[in-house]
Amino acid sequence: MTETFAKGQALDLSQSVILIAGAASLVGSHTADQLLAAGAKEVILLDNFSFGSAEAIKHLENNDRVRMVKADLMRLPEVIEATRGVDGVVQLAAYMTLGFSQTPWNAVDVNLRGVQNMLEACAINGVKKVIFASSNAVYGYGEGIKGALHEDLSFHSKGAPPAAILYGASKIMGEQLCRTYYQQRGLDYLVLRYSTVYGERQHYRAANALYIMDTYDQIKAGKAPVMPGDGTETKHFVYVTDVARANVKALQSATTDTAMNVSGPAPVTTGELVQLVLDYCKSDLKPELRPDPPGKVRLTSGGAFHIPHDKALTAIDWQPEVTMPEGVKKLLQWRESVDRPSVARP
Amino acid sequence: MTETFAKGQALDLSQSVILIAGAASLVGSHTADQLLAAGAKEVILLDNFSFGSAEAIKHLENNDRVRMVKADLMRLPEVIEATRGVDGVVQLAAYMTLGFSQTPWNAVDVNLRGVQNMLEACAINGVKKVIFASSNAVYGYGEGIKGALHEDLSFHSKGAPPAAILYGASKIMGEQLCRTYYQQRGLDYLVLRYSTVYGERQHYRAANALYIMDTYDQIKAGKAPVMPGDGTETKHFVYVTDVARANVKALQSATTDTAMNVSGPAPVTTGELVQLVLDYCKSDLKPELRPDPPGKVRLTSGGAFHIPHDKALTAIDWQPEVTMPEGVKKLLQWRESVDRPSVARP
Repeated sequence: MTETFAKGQALDLSQSVILIAGAASLVGSHTADQLLAAGAKEVILLDNFSFGSAEAIKHLENNDRVRMVKADLMRLPEVIEATRGVDGVVQLAAYMTLGFSQTPWNAVDVNLRGVQNMLEACAINGVKKVIFASSNAVYGYGEGIKGALHEDLSFHSKGAPPAAILYGASKIMGEQLCRTYYQQRGLDYLVLRYSTVYGERQHYRAANALYIMDTYDQIKAGKAPVMPGDGTETKHFVYVTDVARANVKALQSATTDTAMNVSGPAPVTTGELVQLVLDYCKSDLKPELRPDPPGKVRLTSGGAFHIPHDKALTAIDWQPEVTMPEGVKKLLQWRESVDRPSVARP
Repeated sequence: MTETFAKGQALDLSQSVILIAGAASLVGSHTADQLLAAGAKEVILLDNFSFGSAEAIKHLENNDRVRMVKADLMRLPEVIEATRGVDGVVQLAAYMTLGFSQTPWNAVDVNLRGVQNMLEACAINGVKKVIFASSNAVYGYGEGIKGALHEDLSFHSKGAPPAAILYGASKIMGEQLCRTYYQQRGLDYLVLRYSTVYGERQHYRAANALYIMDTYDQIKAGKAPVMPGDGTETKHFVYVTDVARANVKALQSATTDTAMNVSGPAPVTTGELVQLVLDYCKSDLKPELRPDPPGKVRLTSGGAFHIPHDKALTAIDWQPEVTMPEGVKKLLQWRESVDRPSVARP
């Protein structure tokens, strides 16, 4: 059975001005690179630089098809001004799980009101399409629901820390705000639910992706890498250049009003991942199994899962290309080529 | 296996000042009645009267243990002022599903920032315990998750309208904001997940509870009551006096940091419910099966379910008392005793 999708406007990039909100970032900078490579007429890089790193987009500052705009999603007039004449928006700006733990008021602001401000500005200015960066966190964590609505089944959240659930629920709400604007204001959108993004220009804010960097740092310091649990916990990463390509494909597609996973070729266990980093480092250190210290914010999947991405192939003609061994190698080669990561650990 | 719960402060109501936020409402007014009957030292009725009805709490205005405060959850200074010297808070003020469809900006404000403001004020003023009114909407709607994280499984939301998912997710976030304040600021709380509340002083804002009133109005007008689908759709109501008693019990309990369902004795199908109203009206009209008009906001459960409430018995010594036939009778007797419902249809 082939799923059919609602059809809206497909963007011809050569005729289009694309704004990336949260551009000075891992995903933002790669998306800008690929939009330019695909011939976009103009790319506007919007960031408030509260987390964004000028370094991540420094290589673009002399490109005459690039315009940098320092603006804040919480100030609606700035967002309306920035989206004037824009054809497509890639809405990346958001707080992640750590932010919901450390500064929950800011996180609620940006992930909800900030998204509303962007959608409102797009509706006002007749932007043709919005790509909303969502997350596999919308699926929740823990065990599935069976029949009776027992209290511990809500949002599959058994055992998850509040910040993780807040983050996931904020993305659920962001997706539904997009649907609301589509239904009430005719604004085309696609939701891309990224799995854990990793790659060159990796920052230190993402709880899960950080694990590769932490493991590498540990091994380079001559210490055994720490592995939570028994090493069988599933993670499903996606390489940042694959994510950037999905953003470009989504803008170019006529498909609208639906959500799709953007995940890597296959999931990986924590044990396999640590071994990939050990192999890269040519280290014979043995992983140390260790339970998390109390209060640490880390997402656990609660068992084996995988995140299919066949819907994205049908909907926007996208599938991932970078395998986990290739991706880890590319990330760590980049890590070794720079003095320090592009964004310091908070 | 008996579940054990974290223990915090149990309130002695005779020594306690209790504030109800969103007091001029169905649940608020009954909660005030029962707090006073249980000997509460003082009950503060806070409302901004944007939805609240002065009529719902008019019978309390000359009670010398009652104080009315007109304040808005969106203005933090007012909330800090209102919670000074307060021992316990029942946080009811919220937008429901219809509000997320009609005025999503206000709904996001109140259900998230409003809740944050109340929790912050409680932490500042050393309030001993907060009861947070959540909803079975946190379980989402539609089919359960199986194994692969396919796109249509998110938040069990297959087919649900955006406003319903926004409402449910806002309650998930409210619950987790409570957990955050408990973990970071030591504020005791209990989450009560009400199922569909109905009863005397019923207003016309709740999509599901409205169904009983609509059915009654239809029959009284001599028209066949409309039944969506085939009449087998499950609904699980809870009578308002049972809900109010759960709020009182929760304040009196030492149990903290957990969420529990507050549901009626048993679920009911749409067919059974319509028959109860027909029986009450001594009508021999036959229900008319009719699909919903496009765009109508109505929650569908997507199949049979029930909402167990045995956790509340263990955690706060509460169980529901009012059966569906009793509750429908009480509601409709009240409906006939008043000129018009306490809150006009928006």
